[in-house]
Amino acid sequence: MNNFEYCCPTHVVFGKGTISRLPELIDKNKKVLMIYGGGSIKKNGVYDQVKKALEGYNLIEFGGIEPNPKYETCKKAIDLIKNEGADFLLSVGGGSTLDATKFISLAAKYQGDDAYDAIMVRGETVGDAIALGDVITLPATGSEMNNGGVISRLATDEKLPFHSDLVYPKFSIIDPEVTYSLPTRQTINGIVDTFVHVMEQYCTYDVNSPLQDGWALTILKTLTEEAPRVLANPTDYDTRANIFWCATCGLNYWIAPGVVQDWSTHMIGHELTAFYGIDHGQSLAIVMPRLLKNQKVSKAKKLAKLAREVFGANEPVDLKAADIAIEKIEEFFNSIGMKTRLADYGIDSHEAAQKIKERFMKRNVALGEKGTITADTAYDIIIEC
Amino acid sequence: MNNFEYCCPTHVVFGKGTISRLPELIDKNKKVLMIYGGGSIKKNGVYDQVKKALEGYNLIEFGGIEPNPKYETCKKAIDLIKNEGADFLLSVGGGSTLDATKFISLAAKYQGDDAYDAIMVRGETVGDAIALGDVITLPATGSEMNNGGVISRLATDEKLPFHSDLVYPKFSIIDPEVTYSLPTRQTINGIVDTFVHVMEQYCTYDVNSPLQDGWALTILKTLTEEAPRVLANPTDYDTRANIFWCATCGLNYWIAPGVVQDWSTHMIGHELTAFYGIDHGQSLAIVMPRLLKNQKVSKAKKLAKLAREVFGANEPVDLKAADIAIEKIEEFFNSIGMKTRLADYGIDSHEAAQKIKERFMKRNVALGEKGTITADTAYDIIIEC
Repeated sequence: MNNFEYCCPTHVVFGKGTISRLPELIDKNKKVLMIYGGGSIKKNGVYDQVKKALEGYNLIEFGGIEPNPKYETCKKAIDLIKNEGADFLLSVGGGSTLDATKFISLAAKYQGDDAYDAIMVRGETVGDAIALGDVITLPATGSEMNNGGVISRLATDEKLPFHSDLVYPKFSIIDPEVTYSLPTRQTINGIVDTFVHVMEQYCTYDVNSPLQDGWALTILKTLTEEAPRVLANPTDYDTRANIFWCATCGLNYWIAPGVVQDWSTHMIGHELTAFYGIDHGQSLAIVMPRLLKNQKVSKAKKLAKLAREVFGANEPVDLKAADIAIEKIEEFFNSIGMKTRLADYGIDSHEAAQKIKERFMKRNVALGEKGTITADTAYDIIIEC
Repeated sequence: MNNFEYCCPTHVVFGKGTISRLPELIDKNKKVLMIYGGGSIKKNGVYDQVKKALEGYNLIEFGGIEPNPKYETCKKAIDLIKNEGADFLLSVGGGSTLDATKFISLAAKYQGDDAYDAIMVRGETVGDAIALGDVITLPATGSEMNNGGVISRLATDEKLPFHSDLVYPKFSIIDPEVTYSLPTRQTINGIVDTFVHVMEQYCTYDVNSPLQDGWALTILKTLTEEAPRVLANPTDYDTRANIFWCATCGLNYWIAPGVVQDWSTHMIGHELTAFYGIDHGQSLAIVMPRLLKNQKVSKAKKLAKLAREVFGANEPVDLKAADIAIEKIEEFFNSIGMKTRLADYGIDSHEAAQKIKERFMKRNVALGEKGTITADTAYDIIIEC
C-alpha cells in the first residue's frame, strides 16, 4: 500500500425526509444563494421542500445550470454574488449543479478576470471560497463528498477538472426518495458513472491493498445487482438508497487510500462530451471497454480479480479472465440500456480520434496510471470505439 | 437501509516516515501536552521521532497511561493542564493512550468535581474540549478516526464508553512501521479487537445494505488472510499496513452508515476486564462465540453470509451455516494464539456470570440490536464461556 492522506469534513445526512433538516445545517444569519439546474426540482417537489425548510432565511436564487456545467453560466452566478452578496451557497440538484456551485464558490473570491483560465487551465490556487452545502438529487458524480468538480467552457470546447479543499460541502443532504422520478436515462448514466469512477480507482496495478480492492469490487457487484432492480421498480426505496450510497462511496475516496489511480477513461470521455455534447455517462461507456482492451496486459491482474469476484468467472488464467471482465462490463452496460459505440450516437470514430489526438498533442498528454496513454494511444483507443 | 448521518473531520496521514509530518499538523504557537503510555515508545524510537519533529515547540509531557486507561490516571493529567496550561494534546501510543487523551481533552474543560460521573455515568454533555491529535502506534481500537473512548475507574471497578464530536482527532498519524516491534500478544489482541468491532456493526439483522455488508466482510476476510502472515513475518510492511488500515476502518464507521449495530460483546467484555483485568481483546474473544450461539436465530442470516463469504462455506441452510461461522471464528482466534475460554485465564465462569448479572440488574441493562440481552441472558452467555 502506498502512503496516503485522507480528510473529508463533509457532514452527510442520508435518508427519507432529510431535506427538512436544512435549518439545522445553515446558520440563520447567512444570506443564502440557492443554485439549481434546468427546473426539474420544480417538478419533483424538491424546490418546494427546500423553500419550505428555509422559510425566514434571506434567500436568493440562481437557476439554469446545465448538464456539463458551463463557465459562461457560472459567470452569471458570480456576477449575481458580486452585485447582491451571498455568504452561503446551497446547491440543489445533481452533480453538475454541485460542481458549478463549487466552482462559483471559489471563482467568486478570485480577483482576476478569467477564473476558468486561472483555476482550470493554469491550476492556480484560490485562497478563499464561499461556504457551500447541497441537496444532491442524482446518484452519479459523488461530488457530494469530495473536493472536486468538472467545468466546461463553451468558447473553447474545453471540459476540465479542478480540486480544492475549500470546496468540500459543509453538508450534503441525500434523500433517495427524490430519485424516484428520475428519467431512466439519468438513472443509467449515474450507474455507469459510478461504475467507471470505481474502475478508475481500482483497475490499475496491484499494490497489495486487499481491503481497498475488496471494497471497490463490492461497489461494482452491488451496482450490477441493483441496476436491473431499479429499472424494474424505480420507486423501491432500498434499491434507490443502495444505488445512491454506491454513487457517493464511488467518489468519496473511501476505496482510494493508498492505491494507484487511472482516470484516463474520464479524460478521454470529457473530450467526447466537449466536442460532441454526449452525456458524461455515455462518453465513459464508450471509452472504457476499448481503453481496457488497449491496456489489458498492464491491468490484467485487477481485471481478472474483477471477472472472478464480480462476474463469477472461473477462468484461472489472468489474461483470459481479463477478457471476460471487459466483455462482461460492456454486456452489463448494454443490458441496462447504455449504448457503448460512437456509431450509436452518430459520431464518426475517425474524426473523433483525430480531434482528440490533436488536442492531446497540444497538451502533451500522458494519461493512465503509468503515464503511457499518449495522444497516439488515445487515437488508437477512440478509433476502436 | 436506515437513515443515517456521517461526519469525521479527522485528517489521516498514513504511511512510512509520517511522524516527521507533525510540524505541518500542529500550529507552532500552541503549547503542546504530549501524552503517552508505559514507555514502549521510548524503546521503539517513536518518542525520539516525535521529540525531533517537535523541536522548537513549547512541549510538556505526561506519561504513564495504562492499558484500559484509568480515570485516576487521567485526573493527574488534568491537574497538570490546570497547573501548567496546554492548548493542544498530542497522544502518542495505542488506543488506550488516545482514549485517555480524548477524555482528558473534555474533562479538563469540565467545571464540576467528578468528570467520570458526569461524562461516563450520567452522559452529561461538555461543551468544550482541548484540541487533540495523535500518533497512533497500535492497530486495534480505531480510536484514531472516531469520536469515542472507553475509560475505567479503579475505585468502582467500572469500564464505560463515551462519545463526543469534540474529541475527533484533528489529525491521526499512522505509520505501520512502528508496529514491527509490537509484542505478539498486542498484535493478536488488535486483530481480535478489529474483528469484533466489525462484527458488532455487521452481525445483527438484515436491513438491505449490500454495500456496507460487503465492506464489513472484506475487512474480516482481510484480517483472516493477513493474521497468519504477520505472525510469520512481523516486519513485512504491506502486511502491517493492511492490518492497520483494517483496524482504522473497523471503527471509523465507514461500514456502519444505515445499518443496525449490536455492541453487546463489548459491553459484557468490558465487565470481564473491569472485574478480572484481562486484556480487552481477550475479553472479546471469550464472549463473542458464546454470545453468537445464544443469539444465533436472530443473527442467522448475517452469520450465514459470513460463513459463505469469509470462510468459503457451501452450506445452503442459514442456521447450519451460522453454526459454521461461529465455529470458524473461534477456530480463527485460536489459530493465532488467542485463548477463548474463561478457564484459560483462571476465571471461574459461575462467579463471573453472577457478578456481571448483578451489575447489569442494577443498571437495568438491555443490550444487543433488539435489546433482548438482559442481565439473565448475559448470565447464560458467561456461564457457557
